[in-house]
Amino acid sequence: MAVIVQKYGGSSVSSPERIRTVARRVIEARKVGYDTVVVVSAIGGTTDELVKLAYQVTDSPSEREIDVLISTGEQVSVALLAMAVHSLGYEAISFTGSQTGIVTDSAHTRARIMKIEPEKIKNELSLGKIVIVAGFQGTTQDSEITTLGRGASDLTAIALGAVLKAEVVEIYTDVDGVYTADPKVAKDARKLPVISYDEMLEMASLGAQVMQSRAVEFAKKFNVPVHVRSSFSKDAGTLIREEAKSMEKIVVRGVTANKSEAKVSLLGVPDRPGIAALIFKRLADDDINIDMIVQNVSEVGKSDISFTIEGSDLKRTVAVAEKVAKDIGAREVSSDENIAKVSIVGLGMRSHSGIAAKMFSALAGENINIEMISTSEIKISCIIRKKLADKAVKALHAKFGLGKQRKARRKKKK
Amino acid sequence: MAVIVQKYGGSSVSSPERIRTVARRVIEARKVGYDTVVVVSAIGGTTDELVKLAYQVTDSPSEREIDVLISTGEQVSVALLAMAVHSLGYEAISFTGSQTGIVTDSAHTRARIMKIEPEKIKNELSLGKIVIVAGFQGTTQDSEITTLGRGASDLTAIALGAVLKAEVVEIYTDVDGVYTADPKVAKDARKLPVISYDEMLEMASLGAQVMQSRAVEFAKKFNVPVHVRSSFSKDAGTLIREEAKSMEKIVVRGVTANKSEAKVSLLGVPDRPGIAALIFKRLADDDINIDMIVQNVSEVGKSDISFTIEGSDLKRTVAVAEKVAKDIGAREVSSDENIAKVSIVGLGMRSHSGIAAKMFSALAGENINIEMISTSEIKISCIIRKKLADKAVKALHAKFGLGKQRKARRKKKK
Repeated sequence: MAVIVQKYGGSSVSSPERIRTVARRVIEARKVGYDTVVVVSAIGGTTDELVKLAYQVTDSPSEREIDVLISTGEQVSVALLAMAVHSLGYEAISFTGSQTGIVTDSAHTRARIMKIEPEKIKNELSLGKIVIVAGFQGTTQDSEITTLGRGASDLTAIALGAVLKAEVVEIYTDVDGVYTADPKVAKDARKLPVISYDEMLEMASLGAQVMQSRAVEFAKKFNVPVHVRSSFSKDAGTLIREEAKSMEKIVVRGVTANKSEAKVSLLGVPDRPGIAALIFKRLADDDINIDMIVQNVSEVGKSDISFTIEGSDLKRTVAVAEKVAKDIGAREVSSDENIAKVSIVGLGMRSHSGIAAKMFSALAGENINIEMISTSEIKISCIIRKKLADKAVKALHAKFGLGKQRKARRKKKK
Repeated sequence: MAVIVQKYGGSSVSSPERIRTVARRVIEARKVGYDTVVVVSAIGGTTDELVKLAYQVTDSPSEREIDVLISTGEQVSVALLAMAVHSLGYEAISFTGSQTGIVTDSAHTRARIMKIEPEKIKNELSLGKIVIVAGFQGTTQDSEITTLGRGASDLTAIALGAVLKAEVVEIYTDVDGVYTADPKVAKDARKLPVISYDEMLEMASLGAQVMQSRAVEFAKKFNVPVHVRSSFSKDAGTLIREEAKSMEKIVVRGVTANKSEAKVSLLGVPDRPGIAALIFKRLADDDINIDMIVQNVSEVGKSDISFTIEGSDLKRTVAVAEKVAKDIGAREVSSDENIAKVSIVGLGMRSHSGIAAKMFSALAGENINIEMISTSEIKISCIIRKKLADKAVKALHAKFGLGKQRKARRKKKK
């Protein structure tokens, strides 16, 4: 039988009534004839509460114990959802990360999936059961509990979709799809019926709060079709899939803003070959993900190196950067949390020139200063002051005519 | 090194401050030089809240999923306590039931320990770490999460004490030891410095809210010395140990009242051989624990069979009893929750006569009607109306002079 994987976020299971609603939706898929696997997040707010509790106990909780602590959130959700499915007369079984067979490395709080042993899931599916899996978690080979990083329930769903060769992975969330920009900021933002993995990847990593970028990467790698949709309506959402010939080659598909990053600068770095490699090696050793990097020569024989990271990594990053600065003889380390990254994304950029200039002029038109720039084949990002982010999004959304593309053919969901 | 096992109940870990207090106490044992294993319950009230949540989702949650759900309570506690120990500069590691190597049968919500594989614990102890174990839970051979029944964290501690050959298992609780009667009822109740397993067993199963009787049985079986004491004071509590020659042969050591049982009666049961066996076999098949049983002939060829059970099992029990009643042609099933069991306990009863008569006359003196009687070598129990329980305890405590035994030699704790 064809397999479907559905993933429900924390807000979809935040009350007994909502859990029953999810159960009904899950059963609908089963009734259609799908082998149904469901990935559930912790009840909304639970993970934050648990982390808060940890910090009430100690300033620097061990990451191993954080994982033991916060993995309980999803365990509660899967048990409750299984009960709700039972109460509607269908068979279901809940699995924790370890029972699911999701084997990870031992980087606690941000573990990576090494392999998935899906035999247990397949076995229960073959018995006609709905399998309900705790998102966001796994275990090491030594049975240590790990978590995959915040928001990684999406990743769990996609990874299971890949290994089970699912027809589609449905990501149920509190937004009903991917928009040309945040509708709260750009009032005329449109829902995109379809988007390519690459575009979604840029949108996800750039701060469209719809799906985790690691999950999209994984979906792209294994070519898993993903349907992002609302858990509160039956309307089709946005289908994320391989770039198809039939896809409209829209130059700019969307505008995003990410306000959760922070900037760290090493100032007065001796300008020697290999220095940058050394710095970023040390940061990588500490599992710190770097986003943008800018280097420029500040004085003779010295350069300044700035980079952006997730704001939640700032404390750790500054600690590492200060050690490195001392080791390499840099003058000082500074950091800045009041930044935002605004970006435009679109496959069409590959074959169009002048997009960057158009973006910079839109920002200039609003008197917004650009502090860092980063480009890829299908996106351009600028770091600006955080408080100007919404203004920038509105300006870019208008400049590229995203709200007015009513002529664009609306794809029907397959 | 000598091993000590400490067990802390839910009220001992009910706030970050209390968790730090427990951490300090745990570290004291480590400093003395013990290999220290700590068993922790869920934060007070957590298990009830989780069960309540389950019943908000469905009227009849599956027991497998209840176990997945409620086992998270202890998982939270162990992680937080491990963090608290770390923050005080000591090494600690938390273990869930499955990581601990506690293998159980598959009777969800009331599983029995089949074996303990302590290699992982021993390994961490040998590295100098304090090992913090989630009480109340285990896993089956197939890695299914199980729980051992309410209050079974005591059992976890004693079982680990047995397998690790602990010098002593300390049960930290919100009372400071075992008393001759409930001090809230009998104002002159005395703390017992020492008590035998058998006496404690009767006290525990009879409703002294200090320790679970399964845990005491286990302690007796493996001769594990148990020290029941307060988590809020440094005073010695009550030592539970093998009956020693030096123990005072007090005739009656304590008076207890259990108000949590219920009575079920099958009325008009055909008086045939094997009928009682059939009834209790069917109840046993459903894992219902029977306490007292009374049978009497009510009319020619018919008898009434009454028995007591834990009040929480009442609904299940009545359901089974009604099916059995139908199968064997009994007239009806009745149940009664307004009962209490008052008991007197003491090793000395073995060699003293007239104790029962003295008990019955004390109750008669207060106009308390006795509905069922059950005796063992070292205890006598009477079922009475629940509302008369406190009155009965006071009368018995006075009649046997328990509050006045100031002449009894107070043992010093070793």
